[in-house]
Amino acid sequence: MPVTVAVDAMGGDHGPSVTLPAAIEFLEAVPEARVVAVGLLEPLTAALAKIKSPAKARIAIEAASEVVEMHEPPADALRRKKDSSMRVAVNLVKDGRAEACVSAGNTGALMAISRFVLKTLPGVDRPAIASQLPTRKGVTTVLDLGANVNCSPEQLLQFAVMGTALVSAVDHIDRPTVGLLNIGEEDIKGNDVVKETAELLKASGLNFHGNVEGDDIYKGTTDVVVCDGFVGNVALKTSEGLAGMLYDFLKAEFTRNPLTRLAAVVAYPVLKSFGRRIDPRRYNGATLLGLKGVVVKSHGGADVMAFRNALMKAHAEAAEGVLERIATRMAATHAAMPATAANGSLSADA
Amino acid sequence: MPVTVAVDAMGGDHGPSVTLPAAIEFLEAVPEARVVAVGLLEPLTAALAKIKSPAKARIAIEAASEVVEMHEPPADALRRKKDSSMRVAVNLVKDGRAEACVSAGNTGALMAISRFVLKTLPGVDRPAIASQLPTRKGVTTVLDLGANVNCSPEQLLQFAVMGTALVSAVDHIDRPTVGLLNIGEEDIKGNDVVKETAELLKASGLNFHGNVEGDDIYKGTTDVVVCDGFVGNVALKTSEGLAGMLYDFLKAEFTRNPLTRLAAVVAYPVLKSFGRRIDPRRYNGATLLGLKGVVVKSHGGADVMAFRNALMKAHAEAAEGVLERIATRMAATHAAMPATAANGSLSADA
Repeated sequence: MPVTVAVDAMGGDHGPSVTLPAAIEFLEAVPEARVVAVGLLEPLTAALAKIKSPAKARIAIEAASEVVEMHEPPADALRRKKDSSMRVAVNLVKDGRAEACVSAGNTGALMAISRFVLKTLPGVDRPAIASQLPTRKGVTTVLDLGANVNCSPEQLLQFAVMGTALVSAVDHIDRPTVGLLNIGEEDIKGNDVVKETAELLKASGLNFHGNVEGDDIYKGTTDVVVCDGFVGNVALKTSEGLAGMLYDFLKAEFTRNPLTRLAAVVAYPVLKSFGRRIDPRRYNGATLLGLKGVVVKSHGGADVMAFRNALMKAHAEAAEGVLERIATRMAATHAAMPATAANGSLSADA
Repeated sequence: MPVTVAVDAMGGDHGPSVTLPAAIEFLEAVPEARVVAVGLLEPLTAALAKIKSPAKARIAIEAASEVVEMHEPPADALRRKKDSSMRVAVNLVKDGRAEACVSAGNTGALMAISRFVLKTLPGVDRPAIASQLPTRKGVTTVLDLGANVNCSPEQLLQFAVMGTALVSAVDHIDRPTVGLLNIGEEDIKGNDVVKETAELLKASGLNFHGNVEGDDIYKGTTDVVVCDGFVGNVALKTSEGLAGMLYDFLKAEFTRNPLTRLAAVVAYPVLKSFGRRIDPRRYNGATLLGLKGVVVKSHGGADVMAFRNALMKAHAEAAEGVLERIATRMAATHAAMPATAANGSLSADA
């Protein structure tokens, strides 16, 4: 079945000037896909008028009368902006008019709206934010990256199930390995929540590797790394901060004087190839995982290439049936767990 | 008063072949300092015999009959190895024969032994591990980096007080800014512990900047960043993993073929200058902060330059009176806090 992706065309720092060209590039790359671009009619039609590609025929426009601001409190966006481009895009998924939705807008608002409109899948207490990070071996999917600041062991188990389903679908790995982010490899390390989670994971039937440490993310030790949203968010932001600093230091050294600038010219192809390998735009798109619908959050500052990749990701997740896989894996894990855990379902007690 | 540093000469991956030459370099750099090298007599005297420097006259040898292994459980090291080089080195501080001690051995064992032998300073529930990280602006001191996986708001406040005392002493900053590591800048972000900690910090009289995020560490937004040991350890290890991966990717690109290798030759001075700027050996030495004695943990794989820097750090902390500063600041914070907090002291309720 051809997949239709609903696009919050107003979201992000650049709005339709990025989201529409990105949608065109996505449609050119995936000939059977369709896009519904949601937003204020005037800027949307103006931006669309500038586009010449025949792929334009596969873009439909859906009107929305307002826009969620980047720093608007999520609760306000949810309660007061019922006709925002973000809300209308999520509604399209709810109504079955689209199989996935992508927004570069306010993360908190997107999560609040998606949870309210779509609800979570059976067995999922709360959605998690999952994203791929580049590693020495390829990519690792890390979750949660910031949606849940306090997680029970049962919730972390659910994240492991969801991450496994996502990676098996999108990366075509049959039994992805799962690592539990901790501060040491030994079983005795970590806090009580992590220790209890390890016990659940051992009994889950998932391909549980054991504890991993922060450096294992970039070593690519496991296909999936599970952690609570506080820890995951700190790991992600710390990585962004360090990568940005190293990039700027390298640039500063190469532009220090005429001699170093000459070296930069000679080294340019090498530096460019290095930059391509770790270009964050290649990994743009975080999945709001555990909802009854595919929702992908693009970085707010995404350019056309980056936003296109978020669209590709949303398309792949819908086309590969991530939601069905989560449901199946959740049921299988449920069946594999000891009686007490199974009777209590995989839900948190609270 | 001249400072004597006790050195666990057996600790780390290389033992006396690194620790003694590093001690010499340290003594050459700090003419009034003295070192007591602790370890098995035979390898110690053999390593010392190879050294020619006149600074050798300021190294005394203290015998120990055993060595704590790198992966030995800390409880075993504490209970069974009462004559380990690590234990004897810490004892020298306890007995007033040294003002500071440095070990590149097992972190958990060093913490357990130091707590047992030296005890904590008044008002300090548990010691924290503090270290400097390079930033865009200079350095930032982050704590805790892994000693405490569950922290109360009161403990996090104590870390802030200790970090402030450390930075004011060693970096000569009168009122260092303190950031609370969180997943957003707004007050409503984070878990309950972090929110309560923010309230304590606001009332503490410290120079509290507010919440900071992971990327603020490398931006150098604040002089001190406070977090619990689980989060801090993940941030540190994630950083190490990412830096290592980027280094290897850059190296791989520059050694891909004869052309890129030529580019590497041209770019060599630039790359070297870049590498020097972020060389982790420059920042080697994590302080076990909050003890009644200066204890510095060197990286286990430290080379001579790195271990020398750990010795310099220990010396500076003793010479600048970090312990007295912590005591003074702890009392001042105590006085600044509202009655309830003051009455309950700064100790955790538990």
